[in-house]
Amino acid sequence: MKLKQIAQRLGLDLTGDGELEIAGPAPIEAATTGSIVFVSGPRYAGELESTCAAAVIVTAELAPRARCAVLISNDPAFDFARVLELFHPPYRPDPGIDHNASIANDAEIGEGAFIGAFTVIGAGVAIGRNAVIHPHVTIYPGAKIGDDFICHSHVSIREQVTIGNRVTILNGAVIGADGFGFVQRGNDLVKVPQVGTVIIEDEVEIGANTTVDRATMGATILRRGVKLDNLVHIGHNCEIGEYSRFAAQAGLAGSTKIGKWCQFGGQTGCADHAKIGDRVMVVAQSGIPHDVPENSVIGGTPAMDIRAWRRSSALAPRLPELARRIRALETRTGIRSDSKSE
Amino acid sequence: MKLKQIAQRLGLDLTGDGELEIAGPAPIEAATTGSIVFVSGPRYAGELESTCAAAVIVTAELAPRARCAVLISNDPAFDFARVLELFHPPYRPDPGIDHNASIANDAEIGEGAFIGAFTVIGAGVAIGRNAVIHPHVTIYPGAKIGDDFICHSHVSIREQVTIGNRVTILNGAVIGADGFGFVQRGNDLVKVPQVGTVIIEDEVEIGANTTVDRATMGATILRRGVKLDNLVHIGHNCEIGEYSRFAAQAGLAGSTKIGKWCQFGGQTGCADHAKIGDRVMVVAQSGIPHDVPENSVIGGTPAMDIRAWRRSSALAPRLPELARRIRALETRTGIRSDSKSE
Amino acid sequence: MKLKQIAQRLGLDLTGDGELEIAGPAPIEAATTGSIVFVSGPRYAGELESTCAAAVIVTAELAPRARCAVLISNDPAFDFARVLELFHPPYRPDPGIDHNASIANDAEIGEGAFIGAFTVIGAGVAIGRNAVIHPHVTIYPGAKIGDDFICHSHVSIREQVTIGNRVTILNGAVIGADGFGFVQRGNDLVKVPQVGTVIIEDEVEIGANTTVDRATMGATILRRGVKLDNLVHIGHNCEIGEYSRFAAQAGLAGSTKIGKWCQFGGQTGCADHAKIGDRVMVVAQSGIPHDVPENSVIGGTPAMDIRAWRRSSALAPRLPELARRIRALETRTGIRSDSKSE
Repeated sequence: MKLKQIAQRLGLDLTGDGELEIAGPAPIEAATTGSIVFVSGPRYAGELESTCAAAVIVTAELAPRARCAVLISNDPAFDFARVLELFHPPYRPDPGIDHNASIANDAEIGEGAFIGAFTVIGAGVAIGRNAVIHPHVTIYPGAKIGDDFICHSHVSIREQVTIGNRVTILNGAVIGADGFGFVQRGNDLVKVPQVGTVIIEDEVEIGANTTVDRATMGATILRRGVKLDNLVHIGHNCEIGEYSRFAAQAGLAGSTKIGKWCQFGGQTGCADHAKIGDRVMVVAQSGIPHDVPENSVIGGTPAMDIRAWRRSSALAPRLPELARRIRALETRTGIRSDSKSE
Repeated sequence: MKLKQIAQRLGLDLTGDGELEIAGPAPIEAATTGSIVFVSGPRYAGELESTCAAAVIVTAELAPRARCAVLISNDPAFDFARVLELFHPPYRPDPGIDHNASIANDAEIGEGAFIGAFTVIGAGVAIGRNAVIHPHVTIYPGAKIGDDFICHSHVSIREQVTIGNRVTILNGAVIGADGFGFVQRGNDLVKVPQVGTVIIEDEVEIGANTTVDRATMGATILRRGVKLDNLVHIGHNCEIGEYSRFAAQAGLAGSTKIGKWCQFGGQTGCADHAKIGDRVMVVAQSGIPHDVPENSVIGGTPAMDIRAWRRSSALAPRLPELARRIRALETRTGIRSDSKSE
Repeated sequence: MKLKQIAQRLGLDLTGDGELEIAGPAPIEAATTGSIVFVSGPRYAGELESTCAAAVIVTAELAPRARCAVLISNDPAFDFARVLELFHPPYRPDPGIDHNASIANDAEIGEGAFIGAFTVIGAGVAIGRNAVIHPHVTIYPGAKIGDDFICHSHVSIREQVTIGNRVTILNGAVIGADGFGFVQRGNDLVKVPQVGTVIIEDEVEIGANTTVDRATMGATILRRGVKLDNLVHIGHNCEIGEYSRFAAQAGLAGSTKIGKWCQFGGQTGCADHAKIGDRVMVVAQSGIPHDVPENSVIGGTPAMDIRAWRRSSALAPRLPELARRIRALETRTGIRSDSKSE
């Protein structure tokens, strides 16, 4: 593709030779002579001067530092994502229903759907238009799903779950399995029936082998634009606000309420019934035992303010030294508290 | 359903208007005028006086505080679970074997079974009565399974695994995959054949996408009533005592022995070969490096007594302050130990 | 099997009665009178004198301490693994393609393959010789796979993924799902197309329900001999060096580079773009925020040298005591820094 064609498709101003043949997009550190790359901020501006790429997508401000052709963008990361799509249209099977799919007679499936081999669609299921449902998906009876659904192999969608438009679910995820609830009854544990459901709003993406449990009563809710990475666990009755993101292996215990635009790092956890405000950011592996006000940036287990956590964790390796210094003070002053000595 | 019908079905004494029409169960904080709710202890007793619910299940002791109709119960949480079931009978397909299931000729399947589309049941498998096996389950050859088995879609049950009565396995769980064992042999890693199995006793429930590995030799054992949440990992040769519970994303390394009635929080881990006594409770995200005596309540990584952990973790954010105070003492007294200064 | 037959099959020297009938291998702590066991080092040598086993595999050095028949081995753990295989040949279905498999017309499958019921093999897929592909596997179009592939039920292998020879993938693993990448665009999150792939070299083993994401651009790479346990997450664009091992529930964020022969404990995590040298060992539950030099042994979150971590974590429960001792020094000397008091 010629550079001028890319500029035209993206609607971006071009500086340099539009006739350049572009081989494809690349990360700037792996660029070759035919690559188009992007630079999103001053941190990488130095590479503008040394890259061998054919062209770079960059802001007007940084553009003068580039030694190659330039596409001027207000949002280089976004426009680069569009270049990725130009060169690599996503894999999408043609519409059609595999003769090996098992679809209930009363299931309603909108026009334009692809449904793969061995997929099972239960009684009373309704699915909107343009669905792409790969092989080996199981949709239990009564689930309702919107338009433009993309669902990869081995996903389970349990009974009565509701899913909005433009939702993507990656391989092996489980939506609406029973929440984890038991009551002790003498020498027995009795299961609390999990009679609620899951509601997933528009434009949610759910990662591979992630689990979102149905509510005990009511609904577990993922609001518009929520993104879950792989192997995430969302407990029963949680509610996650719009556009919040959870990195891999994060987990929420039951009845947690998460605000909008939060970012949870990998392997983070949050206690049941905690309320987390909007735009909270959580460092990887942190554990949140209680409510957190909006706009907080937190880390550690139990989680604390990020600055306190950085200072505290920097001192952790020095605990033995601090203990020695206390002992030296005690020895030299002759002052010893009643605590047992080391 | 009228309140008096509920009282009759549950065998509970009723105070108030038995003719009340009950719309359904609800958590007390979300009750509406037709709801039946429960209060399990004094902590929520205040809500008894303000709830708009039609009826409440409560102990005799707290009953006088309620301003609505009352069902008297020795165990309100248990009786409320039964109300949930009354109003929402669990989804259970009618018996019958889907013509798209693939069942070995010599597999024995007890009466009353439902077997869903595309489920695979291997040679020599035996399954008891009243099984509900959803679509897309794979049961490898030689597995033996008791009565009243409930198995959701995409579960894998590996060869020769033994499963008791009234066991429930949620979607995507894997029972009996190879344990993780390799020996270094020069510049190679050689797999240790995992020739053992998994034994699951009666009334176990296993969560979505959880993995229980087969033993290297012998058996990985889940005793009666064990409950595993989602995405839990149980390593080869572990043995979990009766009625112990593991919240989501907890993990046990190999050959761990867990007592009865333990409760492991979410994202907890336990080292290989550790022995954990009965009734041990483990705070979420804790890591257990060694044996733990019965009745312990522990937290932290490495796990310690819960009181020590609470005090210690409360001080963690104040480490920088403690370090400053040590330095001030050193400066003012002129005493410095030979440790390098800050 | 007679002991002399085992000695012959393994090529080991025998001391004692070769006519002994061996019932099977066992761990030394569970040996019975017909067992063959092994002892790998001096730590277990005491058991050589008390075991009731019929025979033991042991080094020449320790052999004199055994009170039973002995097979002399330079590498007892390795030779014992071979005994396990002698007595328990792995379950391996006979070659043949189930008539319920769904295989694209242009897929190339080498000789000797077993392909189970309902497995789906997409257009353009190529698979080498002697594959064992259990039921309910989905291989998306364009994947290329080498010889001696073993793939268990419910595995998803996404489009264009490349897999080498002698690779084993356990149940439910997902290879090549989209990496987790979104860019904020006003009040929206836009998905970054994940147009890269996954490359898995020879002799890799991947555990149950583990996820290995495809690269944003380029490839996520698992080098020869890498072993991943269950529920592990490997983010987009990671590269893992030869023979590195990851225990269950470990996770790597995006673009992490791991050296050769590393060992990551269970539930460990590593930040994006970190570079970890060869032969690094990581204690379970540790979190690695940055680069780590080769041969390091590290623990904690954030991870530090193992000795510092051991000393530091031993002091963690004593933080309250240290705080008291500081206060006592302050009180008795009359020195107080300007920090707020406890």
